[in-house]
Amino acid sequence: MSGKSALVLFAHGARDAQWAQPFATIRDEVAAARPDLSVALAFLEAMTPRLPECIAALAAAGHERIVVAPIFLALGGHLKEDLPRLVADIRERHPALAVEVLPPVGEVPELVRAIARWLVNAAPR
Amino acid sequence: MSGKSALVLFAHGARDAQWAQPFATIRDEVAAARPDLSVALAFLEAMTPRLPECIAALAAAGHERIVVAPIFLALGGHLKEDLPRLVADIRERHPALAVEVLPPVGEVPELVRAIARWLVNAAPR
Repeated sequence: MSGKSALVLFAHGARDAQWAQPFATIRDEVAAARPDLSVALAFLEAMTPRLPECIAALAAAGHERIVVAPIFLALGGHLKEDLPRLVADIRERHPALAVEVLPPVGEVPELVRAIARWLVNAAPR
Repeated sequence: MSGKSALVLFAHGARDAQWAQPFATIRDEVAAARPDLSVALAFLEAMTPRLPECIAALAAAGHERIVVAPIFLALGGHLKEDLPRLVADIRERHPALAVEVLPPVGEVPELVRAIARWLVNAAPR
C-alpha cells in the first residue's frame, strides 16, 4: 500500500475521439506539475475508462485517496445526480478509499474570470 | 442600423436552471468590460433562447456582425455538426449579417492552462 493520492479528471465523453484531446492535455499538464500524484482521465459515457473502472484500478494499485475533478462547465443532472450515484457506489465497493469531489470549472471563480477575460479580448472591437 | 457588433455565448443548455448560472456570470462580466458590444447568451437545447431566435433578435435590433463563442469544453458533434448547421441556416436567413465562430474553451491554450493550473493547486498534497 503506497498511500498515494490520485486525481481523476472526470469528463462527459463523446463519440468523436477528438473530443477527449483537451482533457488529455490537462491531464498531462497536471501530471507534469505534480509528480507526487497519479493523474487519470475517466468518462461518464461514450468513452473509456468509465469512472468506476478507473477508480477500481487506482485502488488496486494502492491509492488510498481519490480526488475527482469534474471537468464540466456547470452543475446539472450529470453532476447532481449521475456523479453522486457513481461516487456512492464506488465508496460502497471500496470502503477503505477516501473519495472527494472538486467543484466543476464553472463554479470556480478564477476559471469563470479566465473565460470572461479571454472573451473580452477575443470579441471584435 | 447601428452597425454594432454582438457576442453570443453559445452553451449546451440543461433541464436544471442552476446550470445556466456560470454562463450568465460570464455574460455579465464580458458585458461590463465591453460596453461597446451587445453580449447575449443562447443555448443549443433545453433552455431558451435558442441560437436562431437570439441572433434573429440581434439582427432585428440592427447588429451587423455576430461573433458566436461556444462555451463548450471540447470539439464534438455539437460543435462539428449541430453548430455549423445552425450557422448555415442563420446565414441563409440573414444574408447581410456577418457571422463568425470562436473556438471552444478547450481549444484555447490559455484556458486549458488555466484549468490545469487550478487543478495543480486544488489537488491534495
